[in-house]
Amino acid sequence: MPEGLILGMDVGGTNLRLGVFRGGDCVATLRVEAHLRERCLHAENSAAAESAILDILADAIVQTRQQHPEIQGVGIAFPGFIQGDGTLLQSPNLPGLHHLALGTALRERCGLPVLVENDANAAAFGEFVHERSRQPGLEHLLYVGLGTGVGGGLILHGQPWRGAHGAAMEVGHLIVVPGGRRCGCGNQGCLEQYASATGVKLSYTERTGHAPALPVVARLAREGNADAQAAFALAGNTLGQALAHLLKVLDVSVLRLGGGMSAAWDCFAPALQKRLEADLIPVLRGSVDLQRGNDDDQAGMRGAALLAAARQGGS
Amino acid sequence: MPEGLILGMDVGGTNLRLGVFRGGDCVATLRVEAHLRERCLHAENSAAAESAILDILADAIVQTRQQHPEIQGVGIAFPGFIQGDGTLLQSPNLPGLHHLALGTALRERCGLPVLVENDANAAAFGEFVHERSRQPGLEHLLYVGLGTGVGGGLILHGQPWRGAHGAAMEVGHLIVVPGGRRCGCGNQGCLEQYASATGVKLSYTERTGHAPALPVVARLAREGNADAQAAFALAGNTLGQALAHLLKVLDVSVLRLGGGMSAAWDCFAPALQKRLEADLIPVLRGSVDLQRGNDDDQAGMRGAALLAAARQGGS
Repeated sequence: MPEGLILGMDVGGTNLRLGVFRGGDCVATLRVEAHLRERCLHAENSAAAESAILDILADAIVQTRQQHPEIQGVGIAFPGFIQGDGTLLQSPNLPGLHHLALGTALRERCGLPVLVENDANAAAFGEFVHERSRQPGLEHLLYVGLGTGVGGGLILHGQPWRGAHGAAMEVGHLIVVPGGRRCGCGNQGCLEQYASATGVKLSYTERTGHAPALPVVARLAREGNADAQAAFALAGNTLGQALAHLLKVLDVSVLRLGGGMSAAWDCFAPALQKRLEADLIPVLRGSVDLQRGNDDDQAGMRGAALLAAARQGGS
Repeated sequence: MPEGLILGMDVGGTNLRLGVFRGGDCVATLRVEAHLRERCLHAENSAAAESAILDILADAIVQTRQQHPEIQGVGIAFPGFIQGDGTLLQSPNLPGLHHLALGTALRERCGLPVLVENDANAAAFGEFVHERSRQPGLEHLLYVGLGTGVGGGLILHGQPWRGAHGAAMEVGHLIVVPGGRRCGCGNQGCLEQYASATGVKLSYTERTGHAPALPVVARLAREGNADAQAAFALAGNTLGQALAHLLKVLDVSVLRLGGGMSAAWDCFAPALQKRLEADLIPVLRGSVDLQRGNDDDQAGMRGAALLAAARQGGS
């Protein structure tokens, strides 16, 4: 009997990205420009924001299912603090949503099982499933996603670890430069102000006055431009500090870095590895399997689909 | 049928502390001056150090059992990186011990089940059992022990979390002052250089040139001495930084502080709480149950005994 299809959806501030998965294989993808962040910012109140978000997500599910009637379940990678029952406590990127029973509401609207997971945890699960296919018996994995911001996911005993408030692995808000750059969370010197794509561009702009896109900064760094190299070195250095904190707390030895900025791995990895090795306690030095993740682009939706399939006993 | 007795042993660099437990109740205690650290430092080689440590621990068990023949198992709280099978990978405090199958060797010598756990994890389990008696359903707890150094323990799903190399929760080596005081681990600016009893005394000595014992510094702080207050404020401040890191990684909402220095809780708690609240992400502010632990003095041996009893199905 063939496995059923699972819809994986990665919810961003601007786009919904949808993938139809059979096991780990993506058989179709779709992108919907939904401008969720704008809708939240311009909603009259919380109830209006929540209703708009639910409508958009439910529509996307229903329409995709019309094209793929064999879809048997949905996994959603959502940016925010998610509890184990699929309730969104809060989303820093999508203001106005509070204690929204996303999973339950979408299940009722679509008539399908719906699993909701924090986006970085979903990506972590995608990397975990991939890695476990190469290392059977693997139980734990750390994931850090470097994109517009910096997010983290943790798989313990094969399951996402969410914490008491869905706020575990807020790696992007580890403070690495006390008194440093102001962060959206209200603090100063958070990792994501230095080690995200946004952070690297800011570092480059501070030095040069120019504001090119990240791939341009990466190209300049590879061509030997000292300002671009310094921007990536600062990213690697602060990331090394934060990963050392993570490893001293968790001692999980498989660590994967994903997200869009991981395409510039060669630009920041030397500074990262140097700082990480320096900051670790001796017993952990040389014992961490740190690599670029396998699945930069589809990690969130694939991981969410795999989690939904696992919940349904489908894989 | 009455519960059997369990021997709990807390192994320190100078003393062995032993307690005979029935459930969580200590029915007898004993202290043995064993000078383990000196023996390790002066041993001819690793084999000699290991043999000396095993002899001393086995003798202590055998002698205590002669007085309490009803002892049915042993739990040992040991300072070092311990794997789940009771193997000591390394002990920063007891140099020369490497990959020592402590649990197995002591079991063979004493003819009793022997459980070995990292000392801070054992203390964490003791606090966890206590806290769970007040909050049934509690599953996770963070523990930080402030003594000569700073150690940490983590209970997840009711079990100690050790990590891949027994090096999880090395809270004392979170770097809080980059380029700061030199630490025994080889790095600079580790938490335990500021927030341990040793660290507070050092802070006071740096300011005054005097080197009193910690209780004296605490008394001075309570009497309004600005240098003593500054030493404790630095401890609280750096501890707040490190606990914010912990909570952003784990989001475990029950956090207990124990160890000898927790007797000076009133001297450092205000600075700690202020810094912790400032550094946390908004969703976690005000949501952390941070208190002084219940069991400063016997936490390690009690926790080890409770773990051994749980392993044997005795509680």
